[in-house]
Amino acid sequence: MEMTEGTPAALESLAKLVRYYILASTTEAGSGHPSSSLSAADLMVGLMFGGGFRFDVTRPGFSNNDRLIFSKGHASPLLYALWAAAGCISEEELMTMRKFGSPLEGHPAVALAFVEAATGSLGQGLSIGMGMALNARYLDKLPYRTYVLLGDSEMAEGSQWEAIQLAKEYRLDNLVGIIDVNRLGQRGETMYGHDLSAYEKRVAAFGWETILIDGHSMPEILGAFDRTQTLTGKPVMIIAKTIKGKGVSFIEDKNGWHGKVLKRDEFEKAVAELGDIDRSIRGEIPKPEDTAPQPAHPREAAEMIYPTDKPIATRRAYGNALARIFPQYPRIVALDGEVGNSTYAEIFGEHHPERFFEMYIAEQNMVGTALGLSRRGKIPFASTFAAFFTRAFDQIRMSRYSGANIKFVGSHAGVSIGEDGPSQMGLEDIAMFRTILGGVVLYPADAVSTERLVEEAARHEGIVYIRTTRKDTPILYSSTDSFVIGGSKVLRQSDKDHITIVAAGITLFEALAAYEDLKKEGVLIRVIDLYSIKPIDAATLKKAAWATMAIITVEDHFAEGGLGEAVQSALAEIPTPVHSMAVRRMPKSGKPDELLEYEGISRFAILQKVKELI
Amino acid sequence: MEMTEGTPAALESLAKLVRYYILASTTEAGSGHPSSSLSAADLMVGLMFGGGFRFDVTRPGFSNNDRLIFSKGHASPLLYALWAAAGCISEEELMTMRKFGSPLEGHPAVALAFVEAATGSLGQGLSIGMGMALNARYLDKLPYRTYVLLGDSEMAEGSQWEAIQLAKEYRLDNLVGIIDVNRLGQRGETMYGHDLSAYEKRVAAFGWETILIDGHSMPEILGAFDRTQTLTGKPVMIIAKTIKGKGVSFIEDKNGWHGKVLKRDEFEKAVAELGDIDRSIRGEIPKPEDTAPQPAHPREAAEMIYPTDKPIATRRAYGNALARIFPQYPRIVALDGEVGNSTYAEIFGEHHPERFFEMYIAEQNMVGTALGLSRRGKIPFASTFAAFFTRAFDQIRMSRYSGANIKFVGSHAGVSIGEDGPSQMGLEDIAMFRTILGGVVLYPADAVSTERLVEEAARHEGIVYIRTTRKDTPILYSSTDSFVIGGSKVLRQSDKDHITIVAAGITLFEALAAYEDLKKEGVLIRVIDLYSIKPIDAATLKKAAWATMAIITVEDHFAEGGLGEAVQSALAEIPTPVHSMAVRRMPKSGKPDELLEYEGISRFAILQKVKELI
Repeated sequence: MEMTEGTPAALESLAKLVRYYILASTTEAGSGHPSSSLSAADLMVGLMFGGGFRFDVTRPGFSNNDRLIFSKGHASPLLYALWAAAGCISEEELMTMRKFGSPLEGHPAVALAFVEAATGSLGQGLSIGMGMALNARYLDKLPYRTYVLLGDSEMAEGSQWEAIQLAKEYRLDNLVGIIDVNRLGQRGETMYGHDLSAYEKRVAAFGWETILIDGHSMPEILGAFDRTQTLTGKPVMIIAKTIKGKGVSFIEDKNGWHGKVLKRDEFEKAVAELGDIDRSIRGEIPKPEDTAPQPAHPREAAEMIYPTDKPIATRRAYGNALARIFPQYPRIVALDGEVGNSTYAEIFGEHHPERFFEMYIAEQNMVGTALGLSRRGKIPFASTFAAFFTRAFDQIRMSRYSGANIKFVGSHAGVSIGEDGPSQMGLEDIAMFRTILGGVVLYPADAVSTERLVEEAARHEGIVYIRTTRKDTPILYSSTDSFVIGGSKVLRQSDKDHITIVAAGITLFEALAAYEDLKKEGVLIRVIDLYSIKPIDAATLKKAAWATMAIITVEDHFAEGGLGEAVQSALAEIPTPVHSMAVRRMPKSGKPDELLEYEGISRFAILQKVKELI
Repeated sequence: MEMTEGTPAALESLAKLVRYYILASTTEAGSGHPSSSLSAADLMVGLMFGGGFRFDVTRPGFSNNDRLIFSKGHASPLLYALWAAAGCISEEELMTMRKFGSPLEGHPAVALAFVEAATGSLGQGLSIGMGMALNARYLDKLPYRTYVLLGDSEMAEGSQWEAIQLAKEYRLDNLVGIIDVNRLGQRGETMYGHDLSAYEKRVAAFGWETILIDGHSMPEILGAFDRTQTLTGKPVMIIAKTIKGKGVSFIEDKNGWHGKVLKRDEFEKAVAELGDIDRSIRGEIPKPEDTAPQPAHPREAAEMIYPTDKPIATRRAYGNALARIFPQYPRIVALDGEVGNSTYAEIFGEHHPERFFEMYIAEQNMVGTALGLSRRGKIPFASTFAAFFTRAFDQIRMSRYSGANIKFVGSHAGVSIGEDGPSQMGLEDIAMFRTILGGVVLYPADAVSTERLVEEAARHEGIVYIRTTRKDTPILYSSTDSFVIGGSKVLRQSDKDHITIVAAGITLFEALAAYEDLKKEGVLIRVIDLYSIKPIDAATLKKAAWATMAIITVEDHFAEGGLGEAVQSALAEIPTPVHSMAVRRMPKSGKPDELLEYEGISRFAILQKVKELI
């Protein structure tokens, strides 16, 4: 039997079926979150099968499908049940939930084509939805709408309020949030319990339209989604009073049932309570308008020009590069955390204002938005000070699980920024980005290599981090030199090298200066520009390790997880000793050179270390 | 001439002096943020010298002093100017600002006794203030008040709203925020410009009292601070309309003057505009009531009891330990991010409800609050899932610069949590905490070592991270075994060991199982429990490296920055090869054992690796 969309009887039957699937799949899995799924079941059935949601089930990736993100990722049994009720997941597949190898993971994973983004770390879905809504409104110019299911507990996350504030600023009336106010968090009542007005006041104060409903009344649910279609100029939040565990009397509104499944006998009892369940019915979702974004036609980028005698900061080269290469990579967009005149993202913004998004000082939402844009086919470059990406580590880590294609660009790396002091110094960023599975970490020393590596980053599918420097640095390379992800440059070498210095960015110039001083004393050393820290050019490093008596790494970053450990790891099976010079003392304000000296990563420190070893 | 407190003429003169100091110190330094300092000058002069602020300038650390935190840390020239005007910093010292070795750093640093916490990464001060206010209200029970100066730009940070929401929940009427609405951010206008009502609506919606004033009208400023003294039941936000650069006509309200200092000639012109400046005056601050918190008397803790045959999760041992040792460390408080029934912080909460703070799902504010408590002499233990500490990396990093004494406890480490999937798996936490300068990273394998290491953490002054495991694990140790920060345990060893396995936590049991299997085949290996990953027991590792042909590290964590790289770093100068076994494939849902196998960190994988090497 095929249901006609949206009749009350059909929706009632579908809601029952969805509840049945939630209970069956979680009991089969032996773990999961049935109670948190049941509270939102009516809301989501009303959304998906009530007629308002448009989705071509045969093309989950279709550009004009409405998007649905479960920010409360632990309600994944509901998500899977919905797509099963839509006929897109078989009952058999549903029963593989949480089992090894199943795309139906404990929390939504993009292995399942109907999942827009991996969620499960709370408070991230609204930012991702914002990225998708921004894309619809300002880039692809498509009528699709983005819906985000939110938990009440997760409204405590500040990231939610970053998204709420900025979605209003960008007038995203194509973005709809739904808060499932089921009163209970993991370990007890939430801050506001069932007080819907607490959410209403706060969300409305940020300029959103709010609609309060009983989340188990289908007419109210349908009425609310209906209203969201016509409201303009601002995003809408549906705030729904729900009962955790709704439909299973003995767990309804009860504490102690978070993340707990029914045992077999409890399951039988619960199913009996649900009454007749028609497992043959399937909900129909109307297709969206068959429209697609204007295809972008890549054109060749202009060539860069840097006079070889004029030092220039790599952060500025980043801005130049992005503006320059855009014609060749027309899927690029840029986002910046209110420091575009420091990161030089503003150069891109000046050239392509329609593709530059000011994200203000809210890094978590910037990264979530970038993920939403990436999932809609864009190539987002997101920039702020290297230090401030630590603010969004959770979003960065989660974006990896969504298969993100984001380029992060962190400026003001290291103690060499000088007087501003440690709060502004990126000293953990290499370590942080190195942990991203399959991620790329680039740290160019001069403008030419920066430009080339920005191009490589745009070409590369996946997460790339580019670390830039505040100070002007000399031009080292010519525009014919090539730079690749996973590469390095041997800048000084001979048959008589005693020691190899491996450096990148600012310390590369210290190493080159030390080379000159040592050469005057008749001591030759090898100098390698390790501009690609991950992946690492193990072959070149190993060759140097066998050819010289020791490796010295020098980095303007804390010792842990940085360039030094990357090299040690690459050479861990080779007997040549690797000595790490890195930031090990409490950083402070001072002149760049004073600080390099203080931390023992200056040309003099390198010179001394080499002499000590030979 | 000594000023009597609070007369209008005195305050006017002091405001002029403060402006003069701001300009003089920044022009002398050649960098800094005069315009952002000038906008808040009248507000802060009114606060500090208007009579409401109580502070014993001879005892900056005194427990009943009012606290003043500059969340907008870039207004440090104002902070220093205020303390200079209070007679606590000499003019000579003021002129050392931003110079190497000066306690007057580019952003406030705790090297200066009048700085309550290091700031400069925006949006963190209110959380820190919340910790200090919580301390006053619920722990030390002192009448001191906490004031936080906020920038308008930084209100975009979600962390602000986490603090705002929770300060209301804890009814902190001893907490006063002051938003310096100077309209201009770093690169242009803020989202709301001079629309004070935008801030008012939002802050009031979260239940705070709001007071709107002209931030350059001394009567309005004094009136506002007066009102904050009598309001009860909720925190207060003063929202002040100010002019960036106020007092220097040619930079007032002008874009392009953020973080820019006056040149010498501009400085002379600005000083002329200020009119007569009396550099001999000093502002008086009344002393607070000479009252101190009840001293806590440590009592000996009870002994732990774990039957050796009953496996128990280390996360549960954490909760047990904290409750048990509290009498001995009565400065302990516990905070948890709404997962106390998973981290088992709830055990402490049940025993000591008055010292347990539910922080809801808002990790950034939890860490900031912990810092505030730490700065007031408490020993905060803050817990959530290991994965979710990534949410607060910026706060963790900054807390180090405040000399924090915080213990972070992250549960649900690694792929071995199983079915919940990657969003819940802590796989970057060791790398993250290892970057903290001087920080300690502990990863106990069984309940006994966990209890001992929780004790060590409480005893240790500084940042400690303890990684706990979800699954029950067997008891390995007896209560007479000792565990120290920087230690390790050699669990299996002989004269004939071929290889050394270094593991910690869950993988230690895999290593021990591999040992048994290999022994049956006549192959002996050494097994080391590296429960202290930082600092690391280099001596024991080196001994093993010289005694065996290879080291194999095994960890339930990504390869980068984890246990393996810590060991490689410790052995980087020793020729013995170090092989790292770690999480290198995209994690997913599954049974713990399936996932250990999939990632190649199981007993079988170890067995195979050993055989491959010998």
